[in-house]
Amino acid sequence: MPIKVIAFDADDTLWLNEPFFREAEEKFASLLEDFMPEHAIIKELYRTEIENLQLYGYGIKGFMLSMIETAMKISEHKMPISLIDKVIKIGREMLEKPVELLPGVEEVLKSLNGDYRMVLATKGDLLDQERKLKKSGLEKYFHHIEIMSEKKVADFEKLIHHLDVSPSDFVMLGNSLKSDILPVLEIGGHAIHIPFHITWVHEQIDHEIKHERFAEVENISLAADLIRKM
Amino acid sequence: MPIKVIAFDADDTLWLNEPFFREAEEKFASLLEDFMPEHAIIKELYRTEIENLQLYGYGIKGFMLSMIETAMKISEHKMPISLIDKVIKIGREMLEKPVELLPGVEEVLKSLNGDYRMVLATKGDLLDQERKLKKSGLEKYFHHIEIMSEKKVADFEKLIHHLDVSPSDFVMLGNSLKSDILPVLEIGGHAIHIPFHITWVHEQIDHEIKHERFAEVENISLAADLIRKM
Repeated sequence: MPIKVIAFDADDTLWLNEPFFREAEEKFASLLEDFMPEHAIIKELYRTEIENLQLYGYGIKGFMLSMIETAMKISEHKMPISLIDKVIKIGREMLEKPVELLPGVEEVLKSLNGDYRMVLATKGDLLDQERKLKKSGLEKYFHHIEIMSEKKVADFEKLIHHLDVSPSDFVMLGNSLKSDILPVLEIGGHAIHIPFHITWVHEQIDHEIKHERFAEVENISLAADLIRKM
Repeated sequence: MPIKVIAFDADDTLWLNEPFFREAEEKFASLLEDFMPEHAIIKELYRTEIENLQLYGYGIKGFMLSMIETAMKISEHKMPISLIDKVIKIGREMLEKPVELLPGVEEVLKSLNGDYRMVLATKGDLLDQERKLKKSGLEKYFHHIEIMSEKKVADFEKLIHHLDVSPSDFVMLGNSLKSDILPVLEIGGHAIHIPFHITWVHEQIDHEIKHERFAEVENISLAADLIRKM
């Protein structure tokens, strides 16, 4: 049975994202190097982010608040107040970054256009993802953006229900095994993994996946070839 | 022609919201009263929020960042660093507030349930609105949540397209003339205004609306009566 809906993860599947977070973490750590070694600062920031995830969710604004809270903790409130300005600047720069498409993305979307309903399924802030989509010039290829507060089984069930398709008509493409692949396989959908060279610790899993509705490919063009054969 | 889809605004249409922002602003202003009179602080905060709207969008996380930036500006970086903790606490308390439904909401949703497709159309953070919807116990009545980065004409056009209905099958209920009513009328949809006693300055308009597809009612039960007659 051919696929009807293709859902694309956005960050690190269509465009660069994780490298900007790594860059921001390093800038942040260097602001606080008088208080703690850089690697310990990054570890502390990660701990704060995970603690805050339930309350703030994903996206740059929550990351900014987590950086501010981490700076207060690490410096034991002894940092200069101007450091807050610098942290906010790091976040604002992230929000204003130009979009760098990954290789082949535009060609693939163009070639699939018309044959499938294509949606963007992402965990970030809506405004931020809309801004990136606009900057990317890819808006015309997508039926709409699905912002998901989490990418767990229940969230994909909601998505499928909302799209009014059956799971077997649905394929998800993404770089995170934990968020884009495993829950989709669990609800009966197809999933194609396109690894990216950097993965956020929180998205990592430590086992291999073998499944009849799963494939792993090196790039998005190969994913498109697979979908056409489904 | 009968209505197919009813879209409900969430904040101050289904549950209290704006009073919590007013309360937070007052708490924030009282933290900084050594630097400026309270009303001037609230004005300055509003200015910062509007400046940041394009970058941060709506919702509590953006509001938290705007409070932090305003505190830095007002105190000319002379505030104690512990004030940042207090500002973050104000925001976190907002995120953790219990949901207070407005009168009649649950009964109305129950009575309309099954006869119409009902969606929640809101500008806040997805995670925050999902949390409120879960706490409210109203989740079962809604097909899904539409998070809109803005509620302008183009955004409602996208929503209508996404819902696959024609504008004449669609009615929007909300407390903001600017965001819930005017753009919906412009695209050919129906709109019912249910005023709330407090409106954020940014949502206020200063003219009356007269339109054949527009109505204003005192409460949500009267709105439901109107919809059934359409």
